Amino acid sequence: MSTSFERVAILGIGLIGSSLARAVRRAGIAKQIVTFDGNPEHAARAKALGVVDETAASAAEAVAGADLVIFSVPMGAYAELAAEIAPHLAPGAIVSDVGSVKVAAIRDLGPHIPEGVHLVPAHPIAGTENSGPDSGFADLFTGRWAIVTPPPGTDETAVRRVTDLWSAVGSSVEVMEAGHHDRVLAITSHLPHLIAYTIVGTATDLESTLQQEVIKFSASGFRDFTRIAASDPTMWRDVFLNNREAVLDVLQRFTEDLTALQRAIRWGEGEQLFELFTRTRAIRRSIIDAKQA
Amino acid sequence: MSTSFERVAILGIGLIGSSLARAVRRAGIAKQIVTFDGNPEHAARAKALGVVDETAASAAEAVAGADLVIFSVPMGAYAELAAEIAPHLAPGAIVSDVGSVKVAAIRDLGPHIPEGVHLVPAHPIAGTENSGPDSGFADLFTGRWAIVTPPPGTDETAVRRVTDLWSAVGSSVEVMEAGHHDRVLAITSHLPHLIAYTIVGTATDLESTLQQEVIKFSASGFRDFTRIAASDPTMWRDVFLNNREAVLDVLQRFTEDLTALQRAIRWGEGEQLFELFTRTRAIRRSIIDAKQA
Repeated sequence: MSTSFERVAILGIGLIGSSLARAVRRAGIAKQIVTFDGNPEHAARAKALGVVDETAASAAEAVAGADLVIFSVPMGAYAELAAEIAPHLAPGAIVSDVGSVKVAAIRDLGPHIPEGVHLVPAHPIAGTENSGPDSGFADLFTGRWAIVTPPPGTDETAVRRVTDLWSAVGSSVEVMEAGHHDRVLAITSHLPHLIAYTIVGTATDLESTLQQEVIKFSASGFRDFTRIAASDPTMWRDVFLNNREAVLDVLQRFTEDLTALQRAIRWGEGEQLFELFTRTRAIRRSIIDAKQA
Repeated sequence: MSTSFERVAILGIGLIGSSLARAVRRAGIAKQIVTFDGNPEHAARAKALGVVDETAASAAEAVAGADLVIFSVPMGAYAELAAEIAPHLAPGAIVSDVGSVKVAAIRDLGPHIPEGVHLVPAHPIAGTENSGPDSGFADLFTGRWAIVTPPPGTDETAVRRVTDLWSAVGSSVEVMEAGHHDRVLAITSHLPHLIAYTIVGTATDLESTLQQEVIKFSASGFRDFTRIAASDPTMWRDVFLNNREAVLDVLQRFTEDLTALQRAIRWGEGEQLFELFTRTRAIRRSIIDAKQA
């Protein structure tokens, strides 16, 4: 693929930002990659690792002359950062992001995008429980989905350049309406994280001898949950605050279902348990068939 | 280690039973391994795989002359099977099991154990979401915990022979009171499985277009849950029916904590979310330090 961008500015160089920088460099689709991070040590570290070509002293300096600007900061920082960079965006530039909630991304970035600059939000469905520029790697997006959610009426060339970017780093790309994305992710990602955080929190409140043993004998179920519940706290706080309606909706459904199971256990209704456990096993097969396992 | 058992009878030759047969054979601690399984195809398959030396036509035939008998059937089958084999147990034999709930194991096996036969229940904290004799493997217990829960007053030599068995197949062994075991496992294993089953069930009830996309875009959180929720339905039904009190207790704590988080999301209380998410991350580090990750 020929070089697609002259200068890519990555705002925030944590797990996702630094992985994208590595993947973009490996794909050879940017002449220059520059970053700004509110934590100067992270930016310097990314430079030292050779992940970016240049670190900027400010977000405004990073985006100056960039034809692609990617927000990879926690979503709570979007609006303020967008206001700060807006006057410095080059005409024809594309502004994108990697945030987990797309309606909120459009709400917070959209009003600051100048005439002649294109907003094309995106969400790579990829990640690990680790944070920071050292934890990133070029293969993070390989074989995973990237969902692109342009607002209605977005310039088609700009959308194609963003979908091409994600294809170039190895992802399968789907274009989707932002609100629909948020409802799907509420159940596949946001609710599971909320549950994992809760159950690990419940364990931390146990009397301390029991808690020691929970850690010591951590069986497969709990161990998996602790990995999920080790994800970045700032990022996830912002996800829940920004996808509130969809998360509360699926949480309500989940709670109803859990209450029904609780009742089945209390009354010894084994058939109801067996029926559900058989049904859920089939879903796993569907996911394996869809090659997402 | 010298041969410890003359004849080991494994009742039920699924994932755990067949893994134990493989591990015992590899460790060279049994002269003969025999199995009986209610599903004759499973027993025949285990024989064909070379996992056992012999298949018996009945449980009574399997245990005749055995100095070690291991129940690895779903817990709901314990009482009936114990009554069936009781008259055929050899004097001095040890009866053990691999079930996930130990108070119920003692309740269901204990009354059937004849004078001069030793009941030493055990629980290897190991497993996968797969079932059947083909899914077993000799390394399943390597580096995992095995918890042994002898009733008070159990013959010490019999206890040591069972702890030696689990050491020989690579496990770290801990002796624990049965009720305490059940409370620890309720939170580390039973509640996580219940939650995973629930959330995957909630997803199966979604309108079908959304459900297709949940499968297609299954992100890391949900994907992990579907793996847990693909575990054996019969085994898990019996776990919940047999550890009811402890599971309902931790479920109540969990529900309270989840309701508090739901409220925090509804009212936009980001600090409360951030505080919890930071606390749970520390637990993950403890588990990694305890080498259970």
